[in-house]
Formats: sequence, structure tokens, C-alpha cells
Amino acid sequence: MNFNIIIYMLGWIMNIEALFMLLPVMTAAIYRESIGFIYLGVAAVCGLIGFFCTRKKPRLTMFFAREGFVTVAFGWIVLSFFGCMPFVISGEIPHIIDAMFEIVSGFTTTGSSIIPQVEDMSRATLMWRSFSHWIGGMGILVFILAILPMAGDYNMHIMRAESPGPSVGKLVPKLRITAKLLYSIYLGMTIVMVILLLAGGMPLFDSICMSFGAAGTGGFSCRNFGQAGYTIYQQGVITVFMLLFGVNFNVYFLMLIRRPREAFRCEELRGYLAAVAISILLITINIRSLFPSLFMAFHQAAFQVSSIITTTGYATVDYNQWPEFSKCILLLIMFIGACAGSTGGGMKVSRVMIAFKEVKKEMSAVIHPRSVKVLKYEGKALDHNVLRSLNAYIILYFLIFGISLLIVSLDNFDFMTSFSAVAANLNNIGPGMSMVGPVSNYSSLSYLSKTVLIFDMLAGRLELFPMLVIMSPGTWKQR
Amino acid sequence: MNFNIIIYMLGWIMNIEALFMLLPVMTAAIYRESIGFIYLGVAAVCGLIGFFCTRKKPRLTMFFAREGFVTVAFGWIVLSFFGCMPFVISGEIPHIIDAMFEIVSGFTTTGSSIIPQVEDMSRATLMWRSFSHWIGGMGILVFILAILPMAGDYNMHIMRAESPGPSVGKLVPKLRITAKLLYSIYLGMTIVMVILLLAGGMPLFDSICMSFGAAGTGGFSCRNFGQAGYTIYQQGVITVFMLLFGVNFNVYFLMLIRRPREAFRCEELRGYLAAVAISILLITINIRSLFPSLFMAFHQAAFQVSSIITTTGYATVDYNQWPEFSKCILLLIMFIGACAGSTGGGMKVSRVMIAFKEVKKEMSAVIHPRSVKVLKYEGKALDHNVLRSLNAYIILYFLIFGISLLIVSLDNFDFMTSFSAVAANLNNIGPGMSMVGPVSNYSSLSYLSKTVLIFDMLAGRLELFPMLVIMSPGTWKQR
Repeated sequence: MNFNIIIYMLGWIMNIEALFMLLPVMTAAIYRESIGFIYLGVAAVCGLIGFFCTRKKPRLTMFFAREGFVTVAFGWIVLSFFGCMPFVISGEIPHIIDAMFEIVSGFTTTGSSIIPQVEDMSRATLMWRSFSHWIGGMGILVFILAILPMAGDYNMHIMRAESPGPSVGKLVPKLRITAKLLYSIYLGMTIVMVILLLAGGMPLFDSICMSFGAAGTGGFSCRNFGQAGYTIYQQGVITVFMLLFGVNFNVYFLMLIRRPREAFRCEELRGYLAAVAISILLITINIRSLFPSLFMAFHQAAFQVSSIITTTGYATVDYNQWPEFSKCILLLIMFIGACAGSTGGGMKVSRVMIAFKEVKKEMSAVIHPRSVKVLKYEGKALDHNVLRSLNAYIILYFLIFGISLLIVSLDNFDFMTSFSAVAANLNNIGPGMSMVGPVSNYSSLSYLSKTVLIFDMLAGRLELFPMLVIMSPGTWKQR
Repeated sequence: MNFNIIIYMLGWIMNIEALFMLLPVMTAAIYRESIGFIYLGVAAVCGLIGFFCTRKKPRLTMFFAREGFVTVAFGWIVLSFFGCMPFVISGEIPHIIDAMFEIVSGFTTTGSSIIPQVEDMSRATLMWRSFSHWIGGMGILVFILAILPMAGDYNMHIMRAESPGPSVGKLVPKLRITAKLLYSIYLGMTIVMVILLLAGGMPLFDSICMSFGAAGTGGFSCRNFGQAGYTIYQQGVITVFMLLFGVNFNVYFLMLIRRPREAFRCEELRGYLAAVAISILLITINIRSLFPSLFMAFHQAAFQVSSIITTTGYATVDYNQWPEFSKCILLLIMFIGACAGSTGGGMKVSRVMIAFKEVKKEMSAVIHPRSVKVLKYEGKALDHNVLRSLNAYIILYFLIFGISLLIVSLDNFDFMTSFSAVAANLNNIGPGMSMVGPVSNYSSLSYLSKTVLIFDMLAGRLELFPMLVIMSPGTWKQR
């Protein structure tokens, strides 16, 4: 194990986090909140440790997939640890597990909260919570890759471990340029969203928080009413942007370099839009009678579907009161999730589509045993290794799901609560159903359950393997 | 498509079913029930049609996996159709969908019922219901293969399509002898169980019905009290025999030919026993306070775990009242199911174990990219085709699960009801939880939901592919 380079990378994470923490410091300054000093203090300590870790650049030898996974897993744990320190020190969230739950939920863009009334928090903390979505959405390590001039193939291992989806597509041959492009598109879209919300009369603070949450497909609110108190126009803007941030960023890159035809030929995009359209249609019909007009039923269905399939987790209504059929649709699209290469969570549309194709191929092998069919996706034959790791992913996914469900069920809530709590956190959505539904929160769960859900959020965001690699004894055996 | 041989095989199924129907006829004669004439009439019609279909033996050419799947799928539909006719004609279950639900539940060894009070039924019908478990447990087509002198490789396709598990192990090179051996072991164990129950003071009628249900891992009762009214000894015998019928029959064969060491080296047997032991232990601890003594808690935990992991579905208590943790364990072992090559349902222990190994291999590939590891199971390297079809099975399983859940949720029952109804029927268990729990039944579901669950029961029993092959347009295109 190449510890030097891992510590070096962790140091950079601390440096960048210290930098990012200046945003809540500024927020506190504007709103004259004393908590700003706490954020400043934590940022200073974080930056100081980071400075010592990054003083000497190690030689870039021996960095493999294993090191990539370990760096990413520990990177996210370190990020979360320092990120939640201001909550604990200020006493806004005194218990360390609650504080970790809240910030891991932020960085993993889950958005599940243990805070009953968010408006009791300081503005600085609300801004930091929402900003953590934005940082975690595209990935802190991808950000470091974008700004750090480090040559070498080994960055690919980090990118692969942090980016969502079954395989990483480099936009351009140079990884650093790819990372820069991704962050530029991301930042640009976020700014457009803030402007559109401001134009609709939303206060600046809300606009920024809502945009950070939508961009990272996070889901934290800065209002007690969640998203229910915003106007139809504002909710409409949020709906559209949630959907946009759930699209594979390759599509935007293709549009930027003026190859729109290729962009629309993207299989995953089509599958994603089809899943969204069908879900909205079915739910609209199912909940029609609950709303005064067809438009309102459609509006609410569209908001909720966009929020859940992109794993954002915003809510304008208590969909817990909807009929079981609509609730089941929402529960199923929780598992599908957004596109690979987006900021969303879940299994990813591409994984589901490839899995479908595997079944189709097997069926055709049964019916026509002598026909030889190659599995193609996005016009290319699927690599054997991608398939193998995808199958392992699916199995591992249900395994982690089952074990988590078992532990959370020890709290003895109803089945929908336990089931949807695990589903909502492993898929990085946020609110579940029943006792952890959109008008509720996770504060009533035991610390054991919260710890399991913290693990699930990290595992879900990092696509299962990194978290398991650091827990596997084989990783630490020197060979 | 080779229709001649398919019709020939369907004819044999009708012949055998007519023969099997003499058991309820005899039962009716003993208890002087007039319904006996209806059973006799249906048997006559069934036998007559069968006679015409099997008059001319077709030449054995062109019989492939496709034909095997189609034969098995239609075979089971034909079997169920004639099997439920006495219910409809006698008016005991007047609606055809209810009647189909009941008999499909019987043949697929599910044991989910729409009858609120079973003691209102005639003795003949109760016997026929329980007997259907016994027939379906080992498989009607395996029975035909055992008695019909048909040479040729094509029988393997039928055996493969009807037998539970990822791959079929022939006990001896000759398939007919294998089928005979399986049925001999099966019959022998059933008789031993009847004797042990009689020795414990259970009436003959109950002993036979209980043994049929346990042998086929079915679950129909012949008493309104289910299994709660039997003595501890009788329940103990049932517990042990449920477990025994959930074991891969290869193990018994190895013991018969005096190779006990090989039998106990069977990986699946060990995995199965470990899952049973851990589940019983955890549930015993969890429900300890609900029972007067540790022994009773253990007894009930053992009965319920055996009943559910083997997918039998007998119940001595309303485990719906147990803590959520125990309910979640029961729900999870519903999915694992019994061993391959047993009469039980579910995903099968071997599939779950192989899936585990896939994950382990992938993890080790991540940690040590240069190591080459071969997946081994039961001491042999796993064939690429077996793995491919296993992965497709797992994906298809969750796909069918999701779609079924969505349709059943239209009934608007609580989530535990819809979820456990699909789980209990797709895994061929029987009772679920909540509104379809052990002290309840499926009569309150809509006909749409019942139809979906009928499909799920058949798909679960025949391991998904046969039911999908007959629904796939590609099957019917002549090439």
C-alpha cells in the first residue's frame, strides 16, 4: 500500500475543504452570526494539517486501483469528519453521530436530516449544509484533479472510484481537462439556475441553497416548509433543473462541442427520459382526484418524480399520503436513480439498462441456442470486465440492502419506515416514507441505525466497492 | 417448434393427472361425499383427452431447450386448469380465477389460499389440495420421465426446465433411473413422516395431508387452526421434516450409496444449515420475552424458520405480531429459499452462495488486480454459462418482483401486505405478512392481483425462464 501518496491526497482534501469553508464564514459575516468564528477556526486547523500533509510531493510510483479506492474512501471520511466539526463545537448538533449523519448526508448528496426545524439553525450552517451537496455532487477528488497539476495514469484510478456509473468515460484524452470541463459545466448550470430562481422572486439565500441542492441532487432545505412554500414557477424551475442535473454530463459536453445528434443518440438519456415520462404519467392519473386540477396533479407528480429519480429528495407535498401505487412507483425509481456521469445516485439508468440487456440476451440464448449475440451498449460491445463488475455490483447492492434493513429493523418501526430508510439512504435520496417521510426526519432513529445509514450513504455515493475495500482485511496485507 | 412432441407430453400430463385424481375420489368414497363423482368425471375427461394426445408416439427429432421450456410451461398450465375444475364445478370455489389461484398455489407448492375456513371444504378437496403439493414438489414431468420409457437426450431439456436450481445434477448417467431414484427417496421419506405423525397421535387424514404439504414444501392446512392445534411433538416432527425436504436430494442419494463423507462435504448443505441455525438463534433471542420459556421461544423460532426457508409456509403462531427484526429475518430468508435439487422454492441456497463468491472474486480483483482467481463451487470450477444464466436469473427475479409489486399495489393495501404478498408467492412460500399474514388469506385481493400472483407462483416454481419463454414473441417465430 502506497501510504505516502494517500496521505498526500488526504492533505489536499483538507486544504480544499478549508478553502470551501470560507463560504459559511462569509455567510456568517453577512448575517453577523458569531458562529463564523467557529467555521474559521475549523478551517484553519483543517488547512494547517493539510499543509503539513502536502508539504512534500511523493514520487508517483505504485499507485493502483486498490490505492485509488482507499484514497477515495478515507478522503470522504476525513472530509466528513472536519465538515461536521462546526456543528459539534457550536452545539447546533451536539452529538457526533448526529453531526456526522447530517454532513455525510450533505456530501453524499443524500439530504436526509436529523434536524426537525431547519430555521433554528444559523444561516452559516444552512449554507454549509447546502454547499456540501454541491461539493459532493461532482466529487471533491475530481475537483482536486481539475486544479492540481499531477501527471500520471494513477489519477484515473481515483476518478474511477469517485465517479458514478459502471465505467468512466473521459470526455477528452487528458484527465485534467476532463475534470475541468465537468466542473465548468456544473458551475455554469448552477449559476443559470440561481438567476432563474432570483428572476422568479426567490430570495438570494434561498436561491443559492436550492441551486446547490439541485445541482448536487442533494435535497437539504433552508426552510421549515421544505419546498412547499415556493411558487409554482419556482417549483417548476427546480423540477427542470433537477432533471437536467440527473443527465449524464457527457451529453452536455457533446452539445458544447456542437454534436447534438450524438448527444440525443445516447441510449442512457433516452432510457432516463422514458422512465421519467412513464412515471409522471402513471402517478398523474393515480393522484388526479387528490388535486383541484389536472395541471396541479401533473405539476406535483413531475416534481416528485424528478426529485426522486435524480435522488435529490426535495418535496412539495407529503407523498406519504398518496395511494400505494404511486408510492410504489416512487420506491422503484429510487432504485433506478439518475444517469451515470451525473451528480445523482441510485443504481444508475445505464446499469439497469445493461442488466435488462443481459436478461434479453439470456432469453434469446434459450430460444435460439445457436445464435451468438454480442451485448452492445451505446453502440459499443460491452467489455467482459464491465459486465462482471456490474453483476457483482448488483449482488453486493442487495446484500448491503438486506443487512442494513435487518439492523435498522431492530428499532422496531413499521416495515415501510425501515425499508424506505435504507432505500432512501443507500440511493442517496434523503426522505423515505412513513416515519422517515418528507414531513418527518431521521432524529427518532437509534444511533446504531444512524451509523448503518451513514455507512449506506457513503457506500451508495462511492458505488459500494471503496467502502468495502477499506473494510476487507486483504487490502491491508502487504504483498 | 416441434408441436407434435409437445402435445404428446401434454397428453401424458393429462393421463397422469387423471390417475392422481383417483386419490380424492377414494377419499370421497371413504367419507361418503358426493363430490367424488365430480372428481371422477373430471378425471375421465382429462384421461380421455390425454389418451387421444398420446395415441401416436411422435418421432423424437428436433427437441431443444426451447421445446423443453414450452412443454414445461404449458404442462403446468394444463395441469392446473384440469386440477381446478372440480372446485369450479362443485361450487366449492365458484370463480375460475380463485380456483386457479388455489390449485396453482397447490402445484407450485406455494400454499397461499383464498379459503377463509378450510374445514368448510369437503375432505376430497382438502386431500386433493394437499396432494397437489406432493405432485408439484418433485415435478409432474420428472414423474413422467421416471415411468415413461423414452430414450433420447431431449428429456434432459425437460428435467432442466422443471428442476429447481442453477444446474441439474444427474445422480446416475441414465436420466430415467435418476428420476426413479428421486421419486423413491421422496416417497420413502413421506411415508416415514406419516408414520411418525401417526405415532404421535395425529389422525390419519391430517398425517397424510401434513406430510404431503411438508414433502412438497407446500403449506396448505386441513384445519382452521393451521398447525397451531397440534402437539409440540407433532410440530417438532413437522419442523424436522420440512428441513429435511429442503435439502438437496443428491445428499440423500450419496448417503444411500454409502458415501456419507461426500454428502456432508456438500457446500450447499453447510450453507443451508448455517442460515437456518443463525436465523433460529437470532429470532429465539428476539422473541424470548413473548413466550413463557426459552424452549418454547426456540420451538416456535425453529418451526417458523424451517417453514419459511424451505418455503413451506406452515405456521403455528401469528408471527405478524413478532418484533420487526424477527419479521425482517423471516422476510430475508424467504428470498434465500431451500437448496437446489430439493422440493423448496426461493432463489436457492446455491444461487445465493455462488452470488456471494462472485462478489468476493470481484473484491479480490480490485485489491489484487494481477491475481487470477477461478470461481469454484462444490469443488468444481464454475462454467461460464452457468454464471451468465445465474446473473440473468437474479436480474430477472428483481424485475418480475418490481413489476408485480407495482400491480399488486393498485389494491392500495399497506406496503408490507403488497411486498410480502409478492415475496411469498414468487418464492412459493404461501402466507406473507400484515393483511396476507398466517392468520389471514388472499381472498380480499383483486382478481388482477390474484392473476399476477398466479403468474408469480408459476414463474417462481419453474425458475422464471419457462414462463417468459412462452410470452416472448421470438419463441413463436419459425426459423
